[in-house]
Amino acid sequence: MGRNRLEAFSDGVLAIIITIMVLEMKVPHSADFTALQPVIPIFLTYVLSFVYLGIYWNNHHHMLHVTKHVNGAILWANLHLLFWLSLFPFVTGWMGENHFEAAPMALYGVVLLMAAIAYFILQYTIIFSQGPNSLLAKAIGGDFKGKISPILYAIAIPAAFYTPLISISLYILVALMWLIPDRRIERVINNSQ
Amino acid sequence: MGRNRLEAFSDGVLAIIITIMVLEMKVPHSADFTALQPVIPIFLTYVLSFVYLGIYWNNHHHMLHVTKHVNGAILWANLHLLFWLSLFPFVTGWMGENHFEAAPMALYGVVLLMAAIAYFILQYTIIFSQGPNSLLAKAIGGDFKGKISPILYAIAIPAAFYTPLISISLYILVALMWLIPDRRIERVINNSQ
Amino acid sequence: MGRNRLEAFSDGVLAIIITIMVLEMKVPHSADFTALQPVIPIFLTYVLSFVYLGIYWNNHHHMLHVTKHVNGAILWANLHLLFWLSLFPFVTGWMGENHFEAAPMALYGVVLLMAAIAYFILQYTIIFSQGPNSLLAKAIGGDFKGKISPILYAIAIPAAFYTPLISISLYILVALMWLIPDRRIERVINNSQ
Amino acid sequence: MGRNRLEAFSDGVLAIIITIMVLEMKVPHSADFTALQPVIPIFLTYVLSFVYLGIYWNNHHHMLHVTKHVNGAILWANLHLLFWLSLFPFVTGWMGENHFEAAPMALYGVVLLMAAIAYFILQYTIIFSQGPNSLLAKAIGGDFKGKISPILYAIAIPAAFYTPLISISLYILVALMWLIPDRRIERVINNSQ
Repeated sequence: MGRNRLEAFSDGVLAIIITIMVLEMKVPHSADFTALQPVIPIFLTYVLSFVYLGIYWNNHHHMLHVTKHVNGAILWANLHLLFWLSLFPFVTGWMGENHFEAAPMALYGVVLLMAAIAYFILQYTIIFSQGPNSLLAKAIGGDFKGKISPILYAIAIPAAFYTPLISISLYILVALMWLIPDRRIERVINNSQ
Repeated sequence: MGRNRLEAFSDGVLAIIITIMVLEMKVPHSADFTALQPVIPIFLTYVLSFVYLGIYWNNHHHMLHVTKHVNGAILWANLHLLFWLSLFPFVTGWMGENHFEAAPMALYGVVLLMAAIAYFILQYTIIFSQGPNSLLAKAIGGDFKGKISPILYAIAIPAAFYTPLISISLYILVALMWLIPDRRIERVINNSQ
Repeated sequence: MGRNRLEAFSDGVLAIIITIMVLEMKVPHSADFTALQPVIPIFLTYVLSFVYLGIYWNNHHHMLHVTKHVNGAILWANLHLLFWLSLFPFVTGWMGENHFEAAPMALYGVVLLMAAIAYFILQYTIIFSQGPNSLLAKAIGGDFKGKISPILYAIAIPAAFYTPLISISLYILVALMWLIPDRRIERVINNSQ
Repeated sequence: MGRNRLEAFSDGVLAIIITIMVLEMKVPHSADFTALQPVIPIFLTYVLSFVYLGIYWNNHHHMLHVTKHVNGAILWANLHLLFWLSLFPFVTGWMGENHFEAAPMALYGVVLLMAAIAYFILQYTIIFSQGPNSLLAKAIGGDFKGKISPILYAIAIPAAFYTPLISISLYILVALMWLIPDRRIERVINNSQ
């Protein structure tokens, strides 16, 4: 079974998630710039979520590129990942509308954490089906970023109830960590091992 | 005529249905966890519908994989299936907002039943066009799950007006039945015949 | 330049149009079947529009299947068609919410007419670029249905202000005319020429 | 790494942006033509934004057609372009609802300007990766339209606070400039160099 349709379906779902998030930015009724003020935190959360979904699409793209065959377990592990990503518009909207308060901030972290776990499961479902000498197993190497991200999310969730600023800083930090090109960091990590 | 564009269009429609369902979960205006309480039944219905649409996508994927040629009848049988699946966001939203009361619970079953019948029609339209010795005819075998599902939905619809719990249990049961990997069950059924 | 990406983009737009139309069916807040009553005319309009978009997708699929090369004029003629089809959710919602009154009924016909004209332009842009002996020119033959449809829409639009029943009957008639398999009708028409 | 999935994802996002814009045209509740009056400016803005997104899709299509290989930098430059395009529904809705007043008119220009800059960055990221003798570098030539457009947007943004008519005229002018077939203009520019 080929991987083309799995990619096409995932692309479709990711494209829709990334685009309907923008519907949470409700068009203001008056025409001056002050009417945009309540939209600003929603916009900033939108930027953060857009970057996260971009990272997921990018990594998903690379992961499936080195995947030769697709089976039922991979299809379901992929749907499981898409499920958690589909909750991004909801938590983005809740966090943006409430100016980064504790509960929405924590729930945002829960969805990030669950998506990271789902990605981890998908990754190992693929490696399990392709064998330990597969290209994917070699490509991810020590998988430092994949392991540290869920830990940082798990710290950010309870932190939201004490200092929301720590949570949002951690979410931004993880996003930046993934934005920096992969190879250089991985080389550093591989060399330091 | 190839099957590629039929797959692409179906993937697009299924990806959108699965994603716009999440729009039924309206973002609460206050920022505490109690504000999430009315969202919980909508979330649970969303999970159920997500699993159902995942099952349909999965089965659709497998069915078209063993389909060589596509004709006008298959195109329309496929659109007929997509029509019933497109009603999922509406019945999911109605059931979720009304905490699993009789009428929405029954209507949810009606859409499940019609989608199952539409899938059945699509399956036999393909088999009819590919011949009785086609790969698909062999692959579906006795098609136990395809035959028992509509019967269980037909029981669940009137049951909603007596004990809604029976209906929802049946909907979950059928979903679980499809989630269990196909081959083992089919082998059991084939051996018992 | 290949036709693949044109197909993919058109499939995407058509899949989204067909699916967001269902968002016009607003989920009722109470849980009994009487609450569904105002949804019924919207549902019926949705069925009609779904069939129309299915016909357009089907015909578009066949037309591009016999198109070898794509140029800038074809890309824009295709976008022009998608523009008019993108107005379906709006006119479907307006007609459905107002129980088939004169103005929405007429506007629905205007969008049908403009889409038919846009399809006609796209068809002749393709034939013009592929030459008069192209497969498409032969396949459409006398194009009876393509010529009679806009005439029937043009009758239905003013008729909406006298007897809306005539308009809706004409819209359903044209849809049924296209649903009947092509070849038989075309053969009849070709033989009668 | 192939360019297919990049095209598919971009097509998906562009198809959704172009289609959800139509959701900003809210269905009026009464059934006469006067109820359509507030929808008209939203419709006109929709037409303008549809044309702009059509131009972007068209140019994106041509640009990727002459792109052989895709790398991480191109993936992110493409996501950056899609980000600014995803704000079209918001600014289109704001401009349309407020009858072309100063602030929404200026913000529309800001999004047009940022999208033009993002397209410019994507173009040079591709040229940088493919080499200065690449097909794309030759195809864009002097890139007159790509250079004059951001300048005209930058004039239109402050002009919105004095004479909104100048801004909207400039937005329409740039759209028309791109609609005119490319080759003739490029030949003129190339000859004049």
